[in-house]
Amino acid sequence: MSLHVHKYGGTSVGTTEKIQNVAKKLVACKKANGDQLVVVVSAMSGETNRMTELAKQMQATPSAKQMDVLLSTGEQVTIALLCMALEELGQEAVSYTGGQVKIITDEAHGKARIEEIITDNIQADLAAGRIVVVAGFQGVTKSGAITTLGRGGSDTTAVALAAALKADECRIYTDVDGVYTTDPRVEPKARRLSKITFEEMLEMASLGSKILQIRSVEFAGKYNVPLRVLSTFDDGDGTLITYEDDDMEKALISGIAFNRDEAKVTLEGVPDMPGVAAAILKPISDANIEIDMIVQNIAEDKTTDFTFTVHRNEYPKTMQILQNICQELGAKKVTGDDKIVKVSIVGVGMRSHAGIASQMFSALADEGINIRMISTSEIKISVVVDEKYLELAVRTLHESFGLSVE
Amino acid sequence: MSLHVHKYGGTSVGTTEKIQNVAKKLVACKKANGDQLVVVVSAMSGETNRMTELAKQMQATPSAKQMDVLLSTGEQVTIALLCMALEELGQEAVSYTGGQVKIITDEAHGKARIEEIITDNIQADLAAGRIVVVAGFQGVTKSGAITTLGRGGSDTTAVALAAALKADECRIYTDVDGVYTTDPRVEPKARRLSKITFEEMLEMASLGSKILQIRSVEFAGKYNVPLRVLSTFDDGDGTLITYEDDDMEKALISGIAFNRDEAKVTLEGVPDMPGVAAAILKPISDANIEIDMIVQNIAEDKTTDFTFTVHRNEYPKTMQILQNICQELGAKKVTGDDKIVKVSIVGVGMRSHAGIASQMFSALADEGINIRMISTSEIKISVVVDEKYLELAVRTLHESFGLSVE
Repeated sequence: MSLHVHKYGGTSVGTTEKIQNVAKKLVACKKANGDQLVVVVSAMSGETNRMTELAKQMQATPSAKQMDVLLSTGEQVTIALLCMALEELGQEAVSYTGGQVKIITDEAHGKARIEEIITDNIQADLAAGRIVVVAGFQGVTKSGAITTLGRGGSDTTAVALAAALKADECRIYTDVDGVYTTDPRVEPKARRLSKITFEEMLEMASLGSKILQIRSVEFAGKYNVPLRVLSTFDDGDGTLITYEDDDMEKALISGIAFNRDEAKVTLEGVPDMPGVAAAILKPISDANIEIDMIVQNIAEDKTTDFTFTVHRNEYPKTMQILQNICQELGAKKVTGDDKIVKVSIVGVGMRSHAGIASQMFSALADEGINIRMISTSEIKISVVVDEKYLELAVRTLHESFGLSVE
Repeated sequence: MSLHVHKYGGTSVGTTEKIQNVAKKLVACKKANGDQLVVVVSAMSGETNRMTELAKQMQATPSAKQMDVLLSTGEQVTIALLCMALEELGQEAVSYTGGQVKIITDEAHGKARIEEIITDNIQADLAAGRIVVVAGFQGVTKSGAITTLGRGGSDTTAVALAAALKADECRIYTDVDGVYTTDPRVEPKARRLSKITFEEMLEMASLGSKILQIRSVEFAGKYNVPLRVLSTFDDGDGTLITYEDDDMEKALISGIAFNRDEAKVTLEGVPDMPGVAAAILKPISDANIEIDMIVQNIAEDKTTDFTFTVHRNEYPKTMQILQNICQELGAKKVTGDDKIVKVSIVGVGMRSHAGIASQMFSALADEGINIRMISTSEIKISVVVDEKYLELAVRTLHESFGLSVE
């Protein structure tokens, strides 16, 4: 008998009808496979926002500790309702809040990290044939304070429980039916991947395919929990996220990720001396602006050009800060462009194959797409191009690397 | 320094604005008296009904265990919001769910009884100057399951906490400004009592003055916790419920209680033999019908008439059951009347004074009010009269016993 952890997010449990559907799926799954089932659920969609709104009326900056007390009620409502729906179908079920499990976390309210999970009671319930329903997103400190893992933390709860219970598979049910080679809205020939590695998924997720919370993928990778993304509303096998194996599809590239909301800024003619990069980036990070790609050109005439990208919303603020830095450092000038996008190819296959980068650059050049910046990692190559080329670039690369549906 | 437990019900915390007002009152109270303050709160009004509605959509008869998981989120929301409001006013505060306190109860989900309260953490918080905010209505079993004390259970939480903490006073803030000599809607001359005994309050409450949950008054009496009922929305001292003392108002009668929703049924010509009362009442209680007054007339011709009152809603069912019993016992016939009401005078003073009953009966007779049934206890005399006489009877007795405002 196998042990599965399933996770249903807020959209999947957004109404009492949807909760009833989840209950039916679970009972059918248990009947078909005799699986031991643990289900992690989120708050019904809309609840978290409703409560955040209430909190804002009470306090300009609501206390993180009390926010956790407040928000954790959302999942508690769902576990009770789902257990009722299961019992109505004649399936014995038992509910657990994070505190009841005990999912022990550190004390970082609002973004707590799981330290330990005590699974004795859950294992006894599973052995007795009960479906175990656990509130996602929440835990408890050693001293008994309620904590939350931050938005999307239910994925993390599911993966952590799967790791602690040594589950055979952790299934994340969501509103998409798997991980695609790229966004089907941009490339209609995009194909669902039946498998992808943890590392590829991390690169895909951080580059904009926001299906899974990054932390939960890291966690699954660390504890080697096979993770499957699949649709709540349709049948299908979804995408299995696992370690690279011989059986893995032999594609060089698994997918094309992209990010529309980029802007790039350049400080030109910076004196080329030690400490310059830090002097430029510190005021930016002090202003809580996240930096994505960084490129520094080779110095000529003892000056260098320093370019990086930020989220488009941060572009005006970043330009302003750079103007000040420009004067302080005695640089030449500040230039920028907020009409750019980032397109990346991701694949573990590129590790063992030369020529991937040049194939990418050629394919883009053949379509007359000018590359403005390049950045590479072991399993990913990203380029910055003008915004107007986004769709063309994605489709060109999708075709070039043989990802399109036949 | 004194220790006070305050309790605010659902109407008092029904909106974020009202919660802010409660926070202001608490801070003012602490500033004025330097009191150590524990506050027990209910769910925001409407929330319990909203959640009960959700539960009904999941399960025809929602599981009591899961109802407790569901409903207990209501107070958890309030404790978080109230703590935020207190912190916004610069007052340090700490929130506790029933499980966090630990308010240990038995396992009777939906109507659990408190067995033990562990106050160590609360006492440390109070000593540190924090206002302690506790979720009413809820507890936890020894094995960690969430329980609720049933509707109105927040009063019980407050009194039990006051007893466990040996508080100087337990204040129940509500939407009335105290306990009145009778319902002011019936007798505009009704007067707020500054003091009343626990026993009187029990008789008043069970007879229809539904200000306080009976269980909480019993509890307060048992542990000798001075209990004060007062208004959330107006200033004023409310009514103190305490043990009889020399200082107590010297009135013979403290109040006139009444109950509109009564019906009376009579089994006439019952053979007068042992076991008859039980034979009549057992099928009634088996049908979960609560019996209020019981009167059995003196036997004539070896038969007797047996009369009792029930809630008016139960009248048709009761009549039906009695028809069956009538045949079985060989009684003469069943008669009934669902157009009757009960009016009672309540007062510890009547213990030491003769003539109270006759004064009551004369006063009613003078107004031509026919008494259909009489029942007495040590501190209460109840009569059943025709429904049409309710207001007249209440006003007549209120005047006769000198309760009216000067």
